[in-house]
Amino acid sequence: MTKVKETDTVILYDREKNKKYFINLSVTKGEFNTDRGRIKLSDLTGIPYGSEVETHKGFKYLLLPCTLYDFIMYKLNRLTQIVYPKDAAYILLRLDVKPGDTVVESGIGSGAMTAVFAQAVGPEGKVISYERREEFIKNALSNLRKVGLEKRVEVKHRDIAEGFDEKDVDALFLDVREPWLYLDRAYEALKVGRMMGILVPTANQVIETLKAMEKLPFIDVEVSELLLRKYKTVPDRFRPEDRMPAHTAYLIFARKIGGEENGRT
Amino acid sequence: MTKVKETDTVILYDREKNKKYFINLSVTKGEFNTDRGRIKLSDLTGIPYGSEVETHKGFKYLLLPCTLYDFIMYKLNRLTQIVYPKDAAYILLRLDVKPGDTVVESGIGSGAMTAVFAQAVGPEGKVISYERREEFIKNALSNLRKVGLEKRVEVKHRDIAEGFDEKDVDALFLDVREPWLYLDRAYEALKVGRMMGILVPTANQVIETLKAMEKLPFIDVEVSELLLRKYKTVPDRFRPEDRMPAHTAYLIFARKIGGEENGRT
Amino acid sequence: MTKVKETDTVILYDREKNKKYFINLSVTKGEFNTDRGRIKLSDLTGIPYGSEVETHKGFKYLLLPCTLYDFIMYKLNRLTQIVYPKDAAYILLRLDVKPGDTVVESGIGSGAMTAVFAQAVGPEGKVISYERREEFIKNALSNLRKVGLEKRVEVKHRDIAEGFDEKDVDALFLDVREPWLYLDRAYEALKVGRMMGILVPTANQVIETLKAMEKLPFIDVEVSELLLRKYKTVPDRFRPEDRMPAHTAYLIFARKIGGEENGRT
Amino acid sequence: MTKVKETDTVILYDREKNKKYFINLSVTKGEFNTDRGRIKLSDLTGIPYGSEVETHKGFKYLLLPCTLYDFIMYKLNRLTQIVYPKDAAYILLRLDVKPGDTVVESGIGSGAMTAVFAQAVGPEGKVISYERREEFIKNALSNLRKVGLEKRVEVKHRDIAEGFDEKDVDALFLDVREPWLYLDRAYEALKVGRMMGILVPTANQVIETLKAMEKLPFIDVEVSELLLRKYKTVPDRFRPEDRMPAHTAYLIFARKIGGEENGRT
Repeated sequence: MTKVKETDTVILYDREKNKKYFINLSVTKGEFNTDRGRIKLSDLTGIPYGSEVETHKGFKYLLLPCTLYDFIMYKLNRLTQIVYPKDAAYILLRLDVKPGDTVVESGIGSGAMTAVFAQAVGPEGKVISYERREEFIKNALSNLRKVGLEKRVEVKHRDIAEGFDEKDVDALFLDVREPWLYLDRAYEALKVGRMMGILVPTANQVIETLKAMEKLPFIDVEVSELLLRKYKTVPDRFRPEDRMPAHTAYLIFARKIGGEENGRT
Repeated sequence: MTKVKETDTVILYDREKNKKYFINLSVTKGEFNTDRGRIKLSDLTGIPYGSEVETHKGFKYLLLPCTLYDFIMYKLNRLTQIVYPKDAAYILLRLDVKPGDTVVESGIGSGAMTAVFAQAVGPEGKVISYERREEFIKNALSNLRKVGLEKRVEVKHRDIAEGFDEKDVDALFLDVREPWLYLDRAYEALKVGRMMGILVPTANQVIETLKAMEKLPFIDVEVSELLLRKYKTVPDRFRPEDRMPAHTAYLIFARKIGGEENGRT
Repeated sequence: MTKVKETDTVILYDREKNKKYFINLSVTKGEFNTDRGRIKLSDLTGIPYGSEVETHKGFKYLLLPCTLYDFIMYKLNRLTQIVYPKDAAYILLRLDVKPGDTVVESGIGSGAMTAVFAQAVGPEGKVISYERREEFIKNALSNLRKVGLEKRVEVKHRDIAEGFDEKDVDALFLDVREPWLYLDRAYEALKVGRMMGILVPTANQVIETLKAMEKLPFIDVEVSELLLRKYKTVPDRFRPEDRMPAHTAYLIFARKIGGEENGRT
Repeated sequence: MTKVKETDTVILYDREKNKKYFINLSVTKGEFNTDRGRIKLSDLTGIPYGSEVETHKGFKYLLLPCTLYDFIMYKLNRLTQIVYPKDAAYILLRLDVKPGDTVVESGIGSGAMTAVFAQAVGPEGKVISYERREEFIKNALSNLRKVGLEKRVEVKHRDIAEGFDEKDVDALFLDVREPWLYLDRAYEALKVGRMMGILVPTANQVIETLKAMEKLPFIDVEVSELLLRKYKTVPDRFRPEDRMPAHTAYLIFARKIGGEENGRT
């Protein structure tokens, strides 16, 4: 059985109300307190997930793990537009990120994509995130701490116009306003044969990026968007939800090939 | 630098023709042979990715890693409809699969989803795949071998009507014709608080599954579909491709909560 | 120049505020009154659209026609879910409705689809609408009156289980909860070779309808849905709106062929 | 009963094979001839649609009307990309085209949109189409003739850089490569308060058009795209088709308001 760690975010689930309470054990201390009664938070550490935990009034909450999806959608503190799970998942797969990999990204935003990368690279891997704005760094690190992933992330408080320190990274991801300005820097940092990913919200940005990309030895250029349509879950009236996000971002992918001297012409 | 392993699938890239040759080193032996000349395949093992390798005629191919995405889209031998990367990526995230996890799935299909799970759980994790049809098992294992992932996968040649051997698995995925028949079995195998995923192509199957799911203590039921729209990459004429897949599958997700005695009411 | 008729809905447009006021001349009498001053509504009749009309304080409003789209989206009084313009337009084209045609529909809903049919059939054409619920009839007729289309519409306050009075109609449209119950009635009323259209919100209803349709001599069966995605209109940041309707309805179309004795086999 | 006119395109439907034969009576003369036997085409004029017509061998074809949708999708001779029915229908509704209206468009393309306009304006209305390329005019008129709509269409073999002859038209539609060059001309021709529609395939064209549009007194600017998703019609396996068009065009709409001196600010 997986047990609660003191860096976890946990869910206390009230079955009767079908209601979830998210608690960041790394930052919230003291007691959990509702009209059902109180629970001492330090008592939760070490308890197996799936257990029932009782308040001083005898009400039983179910102790559930918070998935990274839960955290990103419901508990991540957002100072910026985030990379949504549908996009984050596809980026992860397209960049072929796996346990042990080193991923470089910029900027850190609110840390949603950073957390997805950090979970995927595992304890042997590493995420290096470049970010200019200090308040974003603070907030993102706070978010990462709540899911126990901050140790896998190294933040560099710096403008990427100066370039990346790293060479031969396994994947590189840009979520910046003008990615076309940094493509050569990104190119330098990336391993030959590996993938770069870029996220931009507007068509104008895609156009500028594609123009700049033509001048560098990238192949397998893909521009995509993902639409996630949810359905109502009533079996007798199966139909899509009434409304959905129409757009989050355009995703651009490309693979670095070597040799400026004889690259794509 | 990452070096070629003898279990890898590698890409030999011809820059002039912008053409890729995929070679499964674990199964293809002997020589790679084109009009550009010959390369002895056993010589590739140990060479860093990104190197140039020369044929006996002196032509230089660029040696590139094959991403899992590349493999699934272009080289996986398909005996069945596969789980497409857009869906596989989202399933992985929604099921919160991470390095070290144990994932159970059924059936194995052609092994695309299996490979995505196997890459994500890393060397410490495990994928257990139940499959009734022997030819699917053989083919899927052959596919997994070509990307060096078969050691993380245990296949059980068995009907899941008999139930799963495992308890407390971290994630459970069903890609079978009548998933509603096996929900109680899936429920038993899954850890409390963790996610089950189901993939079905038709609305009728979603309806049946939702009906059956109502009888079990699952919460957070989601039914979704993902549409991936690719764009042409010409910057001066930026527009979507002319055609796209209209449908691959409906995805169903649900979280197990404990206590049949006092489950969802 | 087109002139205002006393049955029109008109728009008074305030250029400075970029604000539109919709006025139903057939039902609103007396004066239009804002802080810009007053306009006597009966004075508007006979004035060419595009004119400026002055309040007693000397402020000039621009007099604009209300399109049927404007009316449906902003001024139609809704007692029911309406048929949205994207769907209404496609239904009109698929049913091949043209000036002079006779169209039968059931139910009338709030009259949005009815109005679209009535505008398209022109003064020589006719729309016959069957509806059981009196409050819907009253409301729909009130809506139709506001766009001067009620004379082209004949409403029958009756259950279509009793069948349609008409034979050889040019187009037939069903927007009812259980269309599969009335397919034989619809079949009887329709001209050979012409199209029936059906609108239902759920997949379950499509499935039932398709099953029932298989028993009747219909060909060219189509089931479709239309997604309308709007874009933000800022040229420097061209991108889709953030949210969109995910679903309005499934549309079903079929063509009647003659001869029950030797219909589709 | 509607009777066959000598300008109609008709369908001869073979029930046994579920096969349709489209015949343009205005251009095809002589006999219809299959292995089922021969039918003299001039004999079809005056026969009610829905009748059975017998070959000299005694086989009975069912005589069905060709809808405008049928014609556009299956029989229109295409020299250009056409405006697809989903788009044409929405354009028609957004431009508020009705019986008796005068519509101006450029270019004529293959005449698909022209035909939709011509059918909607009815015998009292008119479509004026500006087109530079003579081969397009010839082909479009030939298409229009086959559906008996050419009398409602006046073609002007001219570049719209010289402007439109018409003033106060009810609707104006541009399907040209660089619509931004002609917006002022379009503005002049349109009635105050009425709608202009523009169709362009690329985002770059939308961006240019929006920029130019900002300089003219247009309001209610909308940019949209329509996705039509068809479903398989097997009731026991209800699901979308495997593939669909990903893109036909972006649609732009705007309403002219009067007075350059005090237009949109």
